[in-house]
Amino acid sequence: MLHVDAYSELVAHSKELATLQSFSALLGWDQQTYMPKGGAAFRGEQLALLAKLTHAQATHPRLGEWLNALNGAFAEGTVEAANIRELTHGYDRATKLPSRLVEELARVTAIAHEAWVEARKANSFATFQPHLETILKLKREEAAIVRTAEHAHLYDALLDEYEPGASTADLKVLFPQLTAAVVPLVKAIGESSKQPDGTILTRDYPTDRQKWFAESAASAIGFDFNTGRLDVTAHPFCCTIGPGDCRITTRYNPAMFNEAFFGVLHETGHGLYEQNLPAEHFGTPCGMYCSLGVHESQSRFWENQVGRSRPFWQGMLPRMKQAFPGTLDDVNLDAFEFAINAVQPSLIRVEADEATYNLHIAVRFELELALITGDLTPADLPGAWNDKYRDYLGIVPTTDADGCLQDVHWSFGGIGYFPTYTLGNLLAAQLQQAMPNADDAIRIGDFSGPREWLKANIHSHGRRYRAQELCTRATGRALSPLPYVEYLKEKFGGLYGV
Amino acid sequence: MLHVDAYSELVAHSKELATLQSFSALLGWDQQTYMPKGGAAFRGEQLALLAKLTHAQATHPRLGEWLNALNGAFAEGTVEAANIRELTHGYDRATKLPSRLVEELARVTAIAHEAWVEARKANSFATFQPHLETILKLKREEAAIVRTAEHAHLYDALLDEYEPGASTADLKVLFPQLTAAVVPLVKAIGESSKQPDGTILTRDYPTDRQKWFAESAASAIGFDFNTGRLDVTAHPFCCTIGPGDCRITTRYNPAMFNEAFFGVLHETGHGLYEQNLPAEHFGTPCGMYCSLGVHESQSRFWENQVGRSRPFWQGMLPRMKQAFPGTLDDVNLDAFEFAINAVQPSLIRVEADEATYNLHIAVRFELELALITGDLTPADLPGAWNDKYRDYLGIVPTTDADGCLQDVHWSFGGIGYFPTYTLGNLLAAQLQQAMPNADDAIRIGDFSGPREWLKANIHSHGRRYRAQELCTRATGRALSPLPYVEYLKEKFGGLYGV
Repeated sequence: MLHVDAYSELVAHSKELATLQSFSALLGWDQQTYMPKGGAAFRGEQLALLAKLTHAQATHPRLGEWLNALNGAFAEGTVEAANIRELTHGYDRATKLPSRLVEELARVTAIAHEAWVEARKANSFATFQPHLETILKLKREEAAIVRTAEHAHLYDALLDEYEPGASTADLKVLFPQLTAAVVPLVKAIGESSKQPDGTILTRDYPTDRQKWFAESAASAIGFDFNTGRLDVTAHPFCCTIGPGDCRITTRYNPAMFNEAFFGVLHETGHGLYEQNLPAEHFGTPCGMYCSLGVHESQSRFWENQVGRSRPFWQGMLPRMKQAFPGTLDDVNLDAFEFAINAVQPSLIRVEADEATYNLHIAVRFELELALITGDLTPADLPGAWNDKYRDYLGIVPTTDADGCLQDVHWSFGGIGYFPTYTLGNLLAAQLQQAMPNADDAIRIGDFSGPREWLKANIHSHGRRYRAQELCTRATGRALSPLPYVEYLKEKFGGLYGV
Repeated sequence: MLHVDAYSELVAHSKELATLQSFSALLGWDQQTYMPKGGAAFRGEQLALLAKLTHAQATHPRLGEWLNALNGAFAEGTVEAANIRELTHGYDRATKLPSRLVEELARVTAIAHEAWVEARKANSFATFQPHLETILKLKREEAAIVRTAEHAHLYDALLDEYEPGASTADLKVLFPQLTAAVVPLVKAIGESSKQPDGTILTRDYPTDRQKWFAESAASAIGFDFNTGRLDVTAHPFCCTIGPGDCRITTRYNPAMFNEAFFGVLHETGHGLYEQNLPAEHFGTPCGMYCSLGVHESQSRFWENQVGRSRPFWQGMLPRMKQAFPGTLDDVNLDAFEFAINAVQPSLIRVEADEATYNLHIAVRFELELALITGDLTPADLPGAWNDKYRDYLGIVPTTDADGCLQDVHWSFGGIGYFPTYTLGNLLAAQLQQAMPNADDAIRIGDFSGPREWLKANIHSHGRRYRAQELCTRATGRALSPLPYVEYLKEKFGGLYGV
């Protein structure tokens, strides 16, 4: 078979796999948005059939033959070579795993997820502990099987699922650099005599006006509502059905402005990435997002680097005062900017501010790494969790529900996932440093500068480069915590006078 | 292989096919409700992949082997025998058709549908005519291939797709009986000095109140909103995603009460049928609706036999006056009942009243039968159409757009579809005659009598019996136009004094 034939067969196969996955995406979106309650049981059966079909497609022997035949067939750096590299990577992972293990993980995590929900409700780590033990055992087994020569550390093989190319060795340098700078900064902020008035954000913000204001901001930033939409769900997310169809969600709290607005900016960042992926490569790696970390960099950039910046609100605050007539008459730009940038160590990751957020992740990274290596046993997790919260955030959970039971990730076997949040935060700051300053344009509501820069330097590449190379290409250097630390120091130094 | 094993393999295969079809159902529902415009092109690709997967599943050789092995294995009248009968019927039709013809029909009708949209817009039958000619040629070819010994007439083989067991011979008796009674009735109504005040229904009916009122009626009748929902679409429909998930749609016209309200009752009738199918047989024929005609009997029963009846409005009119405060202060039950039962020959089928509706269908049945046999050429269709409208309805279209171009059906190859509308209307009246009178309960908003009777006599059987047998079992005799004619005469005789 000619290379060109094998390659076009490969692409067709890959697109068919992506189309099968698009059914799952729609089923998932529908389940969160409009599905009647009674449809839940059958929805599970639908997703199970798709998992079967998707697995068969992803591990089809023909795929292996094409990939073998195409090994080295295209010059390094071409789209074709990148697609073959990434498809080979995915195929190898998928075919190495015995179906026994795949099924056991599916079964165990389904039960563990239910157990976690109950354990969290009952604040009973003991009832979740045996499930966590089984998951760790299976994930260690999985890691040992999928581990390649690239993976110096066993945990690398788990990171690989979410952030291909990321290494434990790098993270073990990066997190201490970050915490060493952020822990004292957060402490100084807490001791500052300047503190924001948070009540500004808990006034009366009617849902319909929040919706209008958030949609107009998403639209201004560049989210295309002809190829996307915004709905309400219990947990906000961004979901791509396929080219020309990317959907984001939020939830409205009429007594709290931040939740929906910054949530929408966050999902808009994810959505812009998806809407700007090269549609001509849909269904192949070069038409897909690079990694979870890179995805998070896009959501965080628009939520924080832009959405919580002074230039953004210089343009937006007058419009906000129009959207909520009378609500903010007594509030000036200084007070508003300070309020939306309040720093306060808290127990719950998903509610954390920019300064403390990565401390929550550092705790989780260090603990899950120790759990995987066996340096920490699940029985000792609650105590270790609380110790780290005391060290990094200066507060200690009074319950495990607000402590080591708070996140869903471990219950579904998502070990190696947490670090991608911090990688995304760091990359967002590093990207902002590398792109031309757009403050003047942002002040007048023109977001095209950063948007087009990100499209050219991140979105348009899809998965052509691994995240590490993409970062170097876009910013001129490897990912570092320094831009993020500088960003925090400048921003919060100014606001809090520290 | 043991019969019991072959049968359980058969059922599993059938359920998997149904699950594949459920993906198409959700994709279709989403396309009509919430899909962003930009998703249309990829939606086509998704549906094309599903068509391929569904076809492969429906024609899989193993299916043929199981069906062969199970031929005669279960006693006549059992669920198993019925499932095998219907699956064999579907398999035979699907495997007899060469893929060349399937693909050509798909290609030709896709183009013909676009051509029909344009031709209707431009009122140009000439541009649609060649497409209709090709479709007729292919449908004749299809009919010749799928025709079995059961099909005395070529057209029977087309009816078979929508109404298995229906026969041209029966329809050629039934339609003339119907028109012979209805044409003079409609004429007499038109000449009556008693006429309703239609302006009652074109007052100010705000959309949100229409929605509330229609939903409360659907709920009262028995539509379960825990396992269903109501959305807005350009064209109303009922769509089952799977057990526990049946969705209906409507459209609201704030200056016209009828459209949404009776539309919702209609779709509620379809929805009740789907919600009451035996879930334990989901994915097999015994868990599916019997035929399009039987489905239509359920929608029409609730829309017309119940929804346009005096007992219904005895209970409902006071509630309606509350739902639309002040709008109907001057309107009494007599005037309201008369207004919603206005009879007026018109050119457009989908807007037709109960008395004239089946005259529209008679025209289409007679013409499509003549087109298939070759007794009528497409070139002569516009003239033949207008002649029949003059004969049956006493009015003549001034344009083909309002004449023979008005329906979508022929453009997608749906020949043999129209008669099912009339079969449904007739069956609705015959079912009402057969069930215990429930007027007293309906007057006080209790619809459980007819609902439970229909569940026991129609819904619970799924496809266990063919429509003809189902009718006889439920009503004690074969389907006849007489109950419907009696129903019309009694109802409109009273209202119009004819």
